Amino acid sequence: MFEDMAKRPAIWLSGEDSTSQIVLSSRIRLARNISNCPFPSEADTDSREKVLSFIKSAIDKSPTLSQGRFVKCTQLDDLDRSFLLERHLISLEFRQCRDSSALFIGEGEQVSIMINEEDHLRIQSLQSGLNIRAAYQIAAKIDEELAKSLEFAFDSNFGYLTSCPTNVGTGMRASVLIHLPGLALTKEIENVISQISKLGLAVRGFYGEGSDVLGALFQVSNQTTLGRSEEDITESLERVTQQIIEYEENARNRLFKDAKDQIEDKIFRAYGILKFARTLTSEEVLNLLSAIRLGIGEGIVKMVTLSQINEILAFSQPSHLQKYFNKRMEPGERDRIRAKLIRSKLAEGK
Amino acid sequence: MFEDMAKRPAIWLSGEDSTSQIVLSSRIRLARNISNCPFPSEADTDSREKVLSFIKSAIDKSPTLSQGRFVKCTQLDDLDRSFLLERHLISLEFRQCRDSSALFIGEGEQVSIMINEEDHLRIQSLQSGLNIRAAYQIAAKIDEELAKSLEFAFDSNFGYLTSCPTNVGTGMRASVLIHLPGLALTKEIENVISQISKLGLAVRGFYGEGSDVLGALFQVSNQTTLGRSEEDITESLERVTQQIIEYEENARNRLFKDAKDQIEDKIFRAYGILKFARTLTSEEVLNLLSAIRLGIGEGIVKMVTLSQINEILAFSQPSHLQKYFNKRMEPGERDRIRAKLIRSKLAEGK
Repeated sequence: MFEDMAKRPAIWLSGEDSTSQIVLSSRIRLARNISNCPFPSEADTDSREKVLSFIKSAIDKSPTLSQGRFVKCTQLDDLDRSFLLERHLISLEFRQCRDSSALFIGEGEQVSIMINEEDHLRIQSLQSGLNIRAAYQIAAKIDEELAKSLEFAFDSNFGYLTSCPTNVGTGMRASVLIHLPGLALTKEIENVISQISKLGLAVRGFYGEGSDVLGALFQVSNQTTLGRSEEDITESLERVTQQIIEYEENARNRLFKDAKDQIEDKIFRAYGILKFARTLTSEEVLNLLSAIRLGIGEGIVKMVTLSQINEILAFSQPSHLQKYFNKRMEPGERDRIRAKLIRSKLAEGK
Repeated sequence: MFEDMAKRPAIWLSGEDSTSQIVLSSRIRLARNISNCPFPSEADTDSREKVLSFIKSAIDKSPTLSQGRFVKCTQLDDLDRSFLLERHLISLEFRQCRDSSALFIGEGEQVSIMINEEDHLRIQSLQSGLNIRAAYQIAAKIDEELAKSLEFAFDSNFGYLTSCPTNVGTGMRASVLIHLPGLALTKEIENVISQISKLGLAVRGFYGEGSDVLGALFQVSNQTTLGRSEEDITESLERVTQQIIEYEENARNRLFKDAKDQIEDKIFRAYGILKFARTLTSEEVLNLLSAIRLGIGEGIVKMVTLSQINEILAFSQPSHLQKYFNKRMEPGERDRIRAKLIRSKLAEGK
């Protein structure tokens, strides 16, 4: 499954304009639960199946979700799940889901809905670049459309009720995927993360909660959802993101002022290795691409475009690679095939 | 001085045939002293000057040395000396020589004669590839021609008398410069060196006695000169060299059988770094070139020729680089200029 999707980069990797240089993508996630039905973790199969059928029918009625793909978890093998995780369409938790869980993927992958994950519904809206409001508007529209067919668990004091107390309130998480090589190279990143945390925002790794930082890619998101409006949350994230961009730009300016040769050397070596290596792990590719992305952002690298970099980033992920070639591969084989695919993608450039 | 020489690789780097893949060059050095004159270290200036003028006049009369360049040490600044050392035309010891010492460089640099180094005369003959006998024949011819005008210190029991007892006898050192990346990568090199030592041969670094091993390049030479004929010494070195070549080839075969992907990856990464790096030390270049030379030898690398590699090896040396651009440079600037020159040299290829 998904071999077709694997042939093109995900929506969050499609940004080619200057706003996508530092902020790769923006994401809104809304947690919703059906009133009077136990949360998935406490529900029996019958109850979960009932919730699934309610939601399926509500999706069918939503105009915004008229085009898309609905898959039940039982249809997904381990490779499919890892692929969807790499695609940022499901969560680490959803990867473990078995029966009565399902996934809806909207056309163009800008929207995905996880059913019977931690909550009955997890509505996700993705946009490339720094576009938190646009992402929120789409998520809010879907929320509204689904609410016409579903009665959401809502408390007039608390707001939306969710399986985990940290999501109670708006049930909303807004996040940006942000590339901070300057702060990483100047070692200021720890300091910035600690400041962000004090503002009530969380900084996570490349694949979200519980994942590692790879290739200087960070996810920044709100931690509190209670007692604040959706507008508050998106505005605050946007403001902080602008601030982080400024820190990052300052760090880059200092780097290019104080250590131009070393940084340029690092960037071009990364390109040389990517272009000629015969075996590459996905982690190494993320780190090499990070340097090259910095080079493109600073106008130093001309022989490869941001869109090529994004394509390589997507296809280099282990499950993407296997989906791309529609073949299960051991890590050693993957590393060779990955290096070969990258060489051919870079040769396409010029 | 020597800016013209710096534009082309040294004779010992000119080999382009398959015999120059593993053995880069062969060298013969003969130590000779003038009878009844104290050795340079014990001689006063008058005596050293007298020796110098004897030898100068003998060189002038030698048909083989009719073309060439005669320079007194006082004409050489530190950069000239380092350049000549990189060129393998002088010894580490000669670099320190002051007044009354001089150097003759034959046409094409196949011959050089150090005057008033450790001995009155050090006749050196260099050939590319494994050509110890050819190198010996040239050195012997010069020795014979000089002996017509000079009376060498010779003892019928011991042979030629020299300043250091280890050179007494033939006064000859025969050596090969050999590239052993296979033995270095398989970590068998220590074992091979210890075997060679037992056979009465010495293994030294890239620039000879007292220098480090760089880029898997080793100098193998005879240690004893007494009680053996010149033919014995050259034949024995040739035999051992053939044996080392066989060890090296076996090591390469094993590497490509057991770790083909890693070795190819190492080779191509070296090429990618060399082609794109913005700052390169000479040590790193030697190591990168070592991997690429291995790749050319094994038929893997096609995008660069052995002659380009040799050219880059020559020009990358710190003093060569400064002579090439006729400009004194600090290490940081050298590393940038070196990387730039290498990029242009590699671009010339295709």
